[in-house]
Amino acid sequence: MHPWIADRTAHVDSSGIRKVFDLAAKMKNPISLSIGQPDFPVPDSVKQAAVEAILGDKNGYSLTQGIPALQSKLQTEIDKLGHADRKVLVTSGTSGALVLAMLAMVNPGDEVICFDPYFVMYPALVGMVGGKIVPVDTYPDFRIDVAKVAAAITPRTKMILLNSPANPTGVVATGAEVRALAELAKQENVALLSDEIYREFCYDAPLLSPTQWNADTIVVDGFSKSHGVTGWRLGWIHGPAPLIEKMTMLQQYTFVCAPHPLQWAALAAMEVDMTPQVNAYRERRDLIVSGLRSAGYEVATPGGAFYAFPRAPKNFASGSEFVAKAIENELLIIPGKIFSARDTHFRISYAAKIETLNRGLDVLAKLAAQ
Amino acid sequence: MHPWIADRTAHVDSSGIRKVFDLAAKMKNPISLSIGQPDFPVPDSVKQAAVEAILGDKNGYSLTQGIPALQSKLQTEIDKLGHADRKVLVTSGTSGALVLAMLAMVNPGDEVICFDPYFVMYPALVGMVGGKIVPVDTYPDFRIDVAKVAAAITPRTKMILLNSPANPTGVVATGAEVRALAELAKQENVALLSDEIYREFCYDAPLLSPTQWNADTIVVDGFSKSHGVTGWRLGWIHGPAPLIEKMTMLQQYTFVCAPHPLQWAALAAMEVDMTPQVNAYRERRDLIVSGLRSAGYEVATPGGAFYAFPRAPKNFASGSEFVAKAIENELLIIPGKIFSARDTHFRISYAAKIETLNRGLDVLAKLAAQ
Repeated sequence: MHPWIADRTAHVDSSGIRKVFDLAAKMKNPISLSIGQPDFPVPDSVKQAAVEAILGDKNGYSLTQGIPALQSKLQTEIDKLGHADRKVLVTSGTSGALVLAMLAMVNPGDEVICFDPYFVMYPALVGMVGGKIVPVDTYPDFRIDVAKVAAAITPRTKMILLNSPANPTGVVATGAEVRALAELAKQENVALLSDEIYREFCYDAPLLSPTQWNADTIVVDGFSKSHGVTGWRLGWIHGPAPLIEKMTMLQQYTFVCAPHPLQWAALAAMEVDMTPQVNAYRERRDLIVSGLRSAGYEVATPGGAFYAFPRAPKNFASGSEFVAKAIENELLIIPGKIFSARDTHFRISYAAKIETLNRGLDVLAKLAAQ
Repeated sequence: MHPWIADRTAHVDSSGIRKVFDLAAKMKNPISLSIGQPDFPVPDSVKQAAVEAILGDKNGYSLTQGIPALQSKLQTEIDKLGHADRKVLVTSGTSGALVLAMLAMVNPGDEVICFDPYFVMYPALVGMVGGKIVPVDTYPDFRIDVAKVAAAITPRTKMILLNSPANPTGVVATGAEVRALAELAKQENVALLSDEIYREFCYDAPLLSPTQWNADTIVVDGFSKSHGVTGWRLGWIHGPAPLIEKMTMLQQYTFVCAPHPLQWAALAAMEVDMTPQVNAYRERRDLIVSGLRSAGYEVATPGGAFYAFPRAPKNFASGSEFVAKAIENELLIIPGKIFSARDTHFRISYAAKIETLNRGLDVLAKLAAQ
């Protein structure tokens, strides 16, 4: 290793997802069910708002906290929660929000509880700031057992990370689960960070946020997934004012501001009804879940996001071995071990055309029947 | 302080520059010479390229390292240095590049040498990752004394930060200074990070980069200042491949990618000749320096960027007291202590209309004559 490289980089490795993308680049006509971004185009009114901002010379710095119009529109939504001292910060994507939250709150040695399987970024970010990730297992149904969370809390626990709808499982936490978790965090005086980036993609019932039961919940949200603008780097974070103020100061010295002209487009995005897109994704969810089950796969019902996380068939030694075989058959999916201490499952994204989903299901049926 | 706030936030405070902006918001017709961004509009071809990218659905994630077209265009420029193993990463502005460099290279306890006066972000960033900033004084002429740097090096020194043309002084390091510094870093096996964000704004001679004498120099650069797109968050960093690879991995878990559609506009920006804008800024530099000197101010010649850093007149107790008086007279400038351990100078930006500069010079002349 190069002698100038800092120790904290030991916590970050080239993501396994990227390795699958590198493989994909070498294939002629792969069946790609690996991508974590919507396949619908950005709504025209949103594109137009971005264009107008660029042509209208909104290209310099914005305020650190975001353009006032967007900030106040978000604040109006957030005020509906009825919390006394809740503020919002416009961030460079939800990942920008997560970075600021970790920098603002996690001391070296602090413990952060997350649910296994977890979003790949969580252990990397916690490790990067010197914290210790404490995974709580949720196999086989990916439901939250609050007794397990309570048992994992120690005097060093600083934060619990909740992600519902979840990446990679698509599972949505029930009201009872969320409430119990919210109340536990409150009782233990532990920060609860709710990553609600897939909020718009809830197919069976609207998302119940822990903010309902815990006024100190920190919420991360964004436009990337809901409006198909993952490359625009636009998100927001809200929570108790003193925390958001510290994150705003940290933003001054790191991200500076979210991309200015695109913030104007975010204003337009808040006016667009994404129900048709969500309905289309619900159909695909139904298609992929029934297809997987008919082929004999064990899969927890994904109530949201655009992923399913089935168990690899028993005739394969591991999730990775199964994924290697799928990739040999031109089907790109992600091994579960990228998201987990276990190597038994795989992630399939259904943010793809129906035709592609059917091609993928054919390969999966063939592999299960081997 | 809120009990959940992490210790590292002690190193970041609301920037003094922002406090001046807050004051400005309350004024009717302030003479604003405080802004660190160009006042010319983004060239039309650059705007058009951004518009086409947005309308052409380049709105999803880009590759972590940047769109291949931009990455390879930058790499072609960088290859002209003739270094064997130098790679580039497209970043979310130069601040994004600086964050990644600090995360990738600075361990807690490591020392980072910078020159006082320094860019406000340096001490904050170094502190944020647990490093220790070691300022080397350059008053009164803001020239680099390499003997002082050599004396400041200890076994814990990891990095030297060079910023030429400099914010806040506008001073450009001479070839002899840069060469001696580059050779010292090499000899001591200390990383040299050259922040060349103001490279395009050199009025008396082209910038001499330390890369010429030290092949391991890490260079930070960007489009923000050169093309007036500070709100687009677009920069790049280049250096020895193993370091850039680590920074790329860190980018996956932090910034994810620079704003995708705006990367296409950066490609167009590389084709635009900014000489007319630079010439206009040279005229303003000449105007402000001669105006200051006629009024009796002591000021080092700013060979680049768009700042001057004069000494406050002797009849004021400190730079801050002088700036407070200037602000009472509707002139917005920044106290030198924001950038320095000393409180004797002030920063004036000449990225403003000639008329505004003349109004500012009138106030300065009046204050000096008091």
